[in-house]
Amino acid sequence: MHVNPQVLIIMGSNSDLPVMQEAADLLGQFDVPCEMRVSSAHRSPVKTAKLAAEAGERGVKVIIAGAGMAAHLAGVIASETILPVIGVPVGGGALSGVDALYSTVQMPGGIPVATMAIGKAGAKNAGVLAVQILALSDERLAQALRDYRREMALDVERRDADLQALRAVDEAH
Amino acid sequence: MHVNPQVLIIMGSNSDLPVMQEAADLLGQFDVPCEMRVSSAHRSPVKTAKLAAEAGERGVKVIIAGAGMAAHLAGVIASETILPVIGVPVGGGALSGVDALYSTVQMPGGIPVATMAIGKAGAKNAGVLAVQILALSDERLAQALRDYRREMALDVERRDADLQALRAVDEAH
Amino acid sequence: MHVNPQVLIIMGSNSDLPVMQEAADLLGQFDVPCEMRVSSAHRSPVKTAKLAAEAGERGVKVIIAGAGMAAHLAGVIASETILPVIGVPVGGGALSGVDALYSTVQMPGGIPVATMAIGKAGAKNAGVLAVQILALSDERLAQALRDYRREMALDVERRDADLQALRAVDEAH
Amino acid sequence: MHVNPQVLIIMGSNSDLPVMQEAADLLGQFDVPCEMRVSSAHRSPVKTAKLAAEAGERGVKVIIAGAGMAAHLAGVIASETILPVIGVPVGGGALSGVDALYSTVQMPGGIPVATMAIGKAGAKNAGVLAVQILALSDERLAQALRDYRREMALDVERRDADLQALRAVDEAH
Amino acid sequence: MHVNPQVLIIMGSNSDLPVMQEAADLLGQFDVPCEMRVSSAHRSPVKTAKLAAEAGERGVKVIIAGAGMAAHLAGVIASETILPVIGVPVGGGALSGVDALYSTVQMPGGIPVATMAIGKAGAKNAGVLAVQILALSDERLAQALRDYRREMALDVERRDADLQALRAVDEAH
Amino acid sequence: MHVNPQVLIIMGSNSDLPVMQEAADLLGQFDVPCEMRVSSAHRSPVKTAKLAAEAGERGVKVIIAGAGMAAHLAGVIASETILPVIGVPVGGGALSGVDALYSTVQMPGGIPVATMAIGKAGAKNAGVLAVQILALSDERLAQALRDYRREMALDVERRDADLQALRAVDEAH
Amino acid sequence: MHVNPQVLIIMGSNSDLPVMQEAADLLGQFDVPCEMRVSSAHRSPVKTAKLAAEAGERGVKVIIAGAGMAAHLAGVIASETILPVIGVPVGGGALSGVDALYSTVQMPGGIPVATMAIGKAGAKNAGVLAVQILALSDERLAQALRDYRREMALDVERRDADLQALRAVDEAH
Amino acid sequence: MHVNPQVLIIMGSNSDLPVMQEAADLLGQFDVPCEMRVSSAHRSPVKTAKLAAEAGERGVKVIIAGAGMAAHLAGVIASETILPVIGVPVGGGALSGVDALYSTVQMPGGIPVATMAIGKAGAKNAGVLAVQILALSDERLAQALRDYRREMALDVERRDADLQALRAVDEAH
Repeated sequence: MHVNPQVLIIMGSNSDLPVMQEAADLLGQFDVPCEMRVSSAHRSPVKTAKLAAEAGERGVKVIIAGAGMAAHLAGVIASETILPVIGVPVGGGALSGVDALYSTVQMPGGIPVATMAIGKAGAKNAGVLAVQILALSDERLAQALRDYRREMALDVERRDADLQALRAVDEAH
Repeated sequence: MHVNPQVLIIMGSNSDLPVMQEAADLLGQFDVPCEMRVSSAHRSPVKTAKLAAEAGERGVKVIIAGAGMAAHLAGVIASETILPVIGVPVGGGALSGVDALYSTVQMPGGIPVATMAIGKAGAKNAGVLAVQILALSDERLAQALRDYRREMALDVERRDADLQALRAVDEAH
Repeated sequence: MHVNPQVLIIMGSNSDLPVMQEAADLLGQFDVPCEMRVSSAHRSPVKTAKLAAEAGERGVKVIIAGAGMAAHLAGVIASETILPVIGVPVGGGALSGVDALYSTVQMPGGIPVATMAIGKAGAKNAGVLAVQILALSDERLAQALRDYRREMALDVERRDADLQALRAVDEAH
Repeated sequence: MHVNPQVLIIMGSNSDLPVMQEAADLLGQFDVPCEMRVSSAHRSPVKTAKLAAEAGERGVKVIIAGAGMAAHLAGVIASETILPVIGVPVGGGALSGVDALYSTVQMPGGIPVATMAIGKAGAKNAGVLAVQILALSDERLAQALRDYRREMALDVERRDADLQALRAVDEAH
Repeated sequence: MHVNPQVLIIMGSNSDLPVMQEAADLLGQFDVPCEMRVSSAHRSPVKTAKLAAEAGERGVKVIIAGAGMAAHLAGVIASETILPVIGVPVGGGALSGVDALYSTVQMPGGIPVATMAIGKAGAKNAGVLAVQILALSDERLAQALRDYRREMALDVERRDADLQALRAVDEAH
Repeated sequence: MHVNPQVLIIMGSNSDLPVMQEAADLLGQFDVPCEMRVSSAHRSPVKTAKLAAEAGERGVKVIIAGAGMAAHLAGVIASETILPVIGVPVGGGALSGVDALYSTVQMPGGIPVATMAIGKAGAKNAGVLAVQILALSDERLAQALRDYRREMALDVERRDADLQALRAVDEAH
Repeated sequence: MHVNPQVLIIMGSNSDLPVMQEAADLLGQFDVPCEMRVSSAHRSPVKTAKLAAEAGERGVKVIIAGAGMAAHLAGVIASETILPVIGVPVGGGALSGVDALYSTVQMPGGIPVATMAIGKAGAKNAGVLAVQILALSDERLAQALRDYRREMALDVERRDADLQALRAVDEAH
Repeated sequence: MHVNPQVLIIMGSNSDLPVMQEAADLLGQFDVPCEMRVSSAHRSPVKTAKLAAEAGERGVKVIIAGAGMAAHLAGVIASETILPVIGVPVGGGALSGVDALYSTVQMPGGIPVATMAIGKAGAKNAGVLAVQILALSDERLAQALRDYRREMALDVERRDADLQALRAVDEAH
């Protein structure tokens, strides 16, 4: 457990780790301290409620929750805290994550879950969104986000240039 | 609150009452005492957990939970009790209850929810299933179920006869 | 065939065995005697109706039925008995089990099927639900279920601790 | 009951009559004697099996079955007869008939159901397909079908001409 | 090309052969002469229309059409003949055959396609349905179908017995 | 029939007129002569093929085809012409147009259909796309399209200003 | 336009106002100044990009974007700002908002949109989430959120009590 | 970059290249000069808008855009140009391309995207449609398209002949 985590990542099962690691990696890239926990809405409801309810006092600013199938985790956490909760639907089962998406996003009025795309892209974006929220009161992070965006655009430029080069070579032959 | 309810019906919102009333009516038809409660997985999580956790001690044998959208209610209740929990997905929103169905039925291994059809047919069947469970140790209910089945088959016969009569008249003209 | 099975597991095809074995294994874990049968709603309707209709007299308390595609098995069985019938939609075909789910859960009013998640998680949960129903009149099973729940929560704790340890090591490097 | 019905139309509930009447009307248009019956796969399984099993001996050539939700009716009938069975998924519930479509069409290998479109268009087409099957050994019906097709094409011509006339008038103003 | 095919199987592409071979194999099992052709609704519309329109004169009684994606083949064929047309949605693409199913089954009023399940089970059943239709005027086929059904039921019995034996051995150890 | 239509609009049924009129209206707004025809892929296949095959010789540049359910119309037309074919899925049935969308868009390699959104928005856009294609060799249309775009942006400005005014009034009270 | 809006609500069309008003009302309830704008991703792309890009400088902390059909609005806005962007899929068309949901939530890695439920519940929750984000650095809002949660739980209590009273009266008669 | 590209192919990520190459290959087969670019609607919005806005001046006649997930690329491009824009939904993620399909095809009135099938078949057809549009003012291309169609029909003939030969051999053994 990190001493002063700003973001708390909770996953319903450690089989969700390969997906949720994307969120932790992104936060690491921005030097945002985070804590990753395994806790299930259904198999360990007391632990889950406690993690959610005490997060604010521990200095956590944003909670990221990832789960699959009937993914109640993010919603259950959201009901126990006023911190922003970001939900990541984890795919892979019979319904490919549509079940997890609907269970995460279709929250009734009053208790929102900020839902991301299914799977790894969503977990990574959960990290980005957490940074965007933290950046509202942290100019270092705001600047890092601007750099991150610029780097993404540059990366597109590089890939575009690579493709042009590749095609130029193809056409020369 | 009924003195000795055998079945506890919980709905996430009183807007679910027209649907969940079907369960209560069915139980009333079999003289099974039941209690209906409003409690939300998200807006009143403490109350919901308490209702679920204490039901067994109060003599409740079966819990029926109905909710719409990201319907976490049945799953959250199932995580707090070892009583059989029957889930009724309530339809009516943008996704017509598919969200509620997936959120109710796709429970992870270990914590089952006995899921019924979306809407009123499902609520009625939640009542029937509760009676079937209670009938395992109550011969009066078992006999009542056999009568109920016989009456259903007779009802089909009557409707079939009506249709034949109707068509005979049509053809005679 | 077991001498005094309390739970009867019927599958539409022996290709469903790898999925339905999860139910039998779970019941074995609780020392609940069960019988597994292959019988198809469509290819052996007489046998299926007979298995369902005679189950009660043989002392069976709960029937679990698993089938794929247009999964009529659980519904057909439910129409022949007043015992609680638990349906497991088996996935794997072109529609990944959505067809089996809808065919199992969307039962019309009067004849319920207690529907579980698609595939192995659902089959395991069918076993758990059967134990929960039997536990209503069997204190040994009720206690075993409470232990099972406690063990699940402990297992989450262990996995959470493992993850913390793993991350501590990662951060130390 | 018609004396010598060539087509037997069975519906799961008399609420399906407005849909299934389309099949009867189409058959009437071709002077094909048919019988309409109400019988449910779940509420009157014995009657349904009997209707299906005895149809052949009564001279029935084709059975049309219409049902909604978890529409097991056509499949259950198909399992009891070697006559061609045509299935009509009846819509209208929470899932708009997708449940009935999947439950009817996704039959496992060995027991086919000739599935039509959801609702009235499907019921009408069930009648047309029955006539097409009967026409294989009935030249009067074959000729009537050729006339029916010609009339459909003429009807399209008339509607096209009406549209041209309408637009000519519009443009003249 | 078979001299006197009773059933004509048309597939939109020879990539559909592994699926559609199931239909031919089933027909071979019943000694029903059939012809298999490749013809596309879109890439060879003239050939397709001609195959359909001339089938009746050649003695064909039933046409089976299999195609994937926007599967127009069965519908286009049905519009050119009054023979019964059986449609097999071929899966495998991005939408797993749901596109082919909807494109095949949702025919407008007047031109039915007898739609089977997606993929191999559906292709096999197309063969069975064709035999059922032919059996209406061919007692040899009717008897063969009754035998086929009996064999299917016996096969279920054998598989059920195998499972009992397997479990008896397991329990003995 | 218009003397020199540049765009040919074909609909499968005159019940599609309220939707397809949107395309004609849009074309009228740009003074592009168009012809509207009723012709069904299934009920009048010869007429449909002829309309498609002869369109090019008549000076038609773009064909718009609208149909519902198993919407084969656009694909069948596309198979008979090398003109660009724009498909409009018409909604309204049990599957709300998803069937028409899949039947229109999922064309196999070689024969494209330029598919629009389901219903009226799609029909309007079919008109816009036809104008965009014609504008490639018609500077008047290119300029009219630029004006149309500017007007759309201005319309958004006006609506935005209205909303600001409305809210200013609300806040003043 | 509000002088110092903390939240900027943008909708793709003023037909989305009845839905998006829920967000504004919720923010009003918490005395959070917000601005509502109409701007389309497609019809006014320049205006939309400008609104998004300049929001940060104007003191906006959170942007809420609501749109229907192929709802690109939230994603387009998110690509132009590092502020947290909350997306509300607006339903109502042929696909009931599933198109808007997928278009909003399935953002590729790097550019998150915090997606809410389809329609009014989602718009209201967009407001709540915005308040939760602002409350991270505003104790007044944090306290107001705690009160709001308490009030929601009390409201559930009141509705539950009403239901008990209603049923007590029913049973007394 | 090609000197005078007539078709501009833009993909959201270079991971889309294996799919979009199908479009370039088809155009190459018709000797239509094209340019392939990587540019993302979200990660490089300025570049994307510029590519779209300047395409017309550079002599581009048709733009093909391919993207996956919440595929905004084609719509964003369409909003910046009056050239016809063809959209290719790229599959492969959790939702198999249904998300990309809906995000591409469900464009609101005024800004059409000519949507193709999901994946490689769609990319190839994007190339074919581009050629069909260019052929409206290029008789060489029109003739090449007629040859292409003839070749497709011949290819079907050859495959049909192969199948007949194969079956003749099979039957001879």
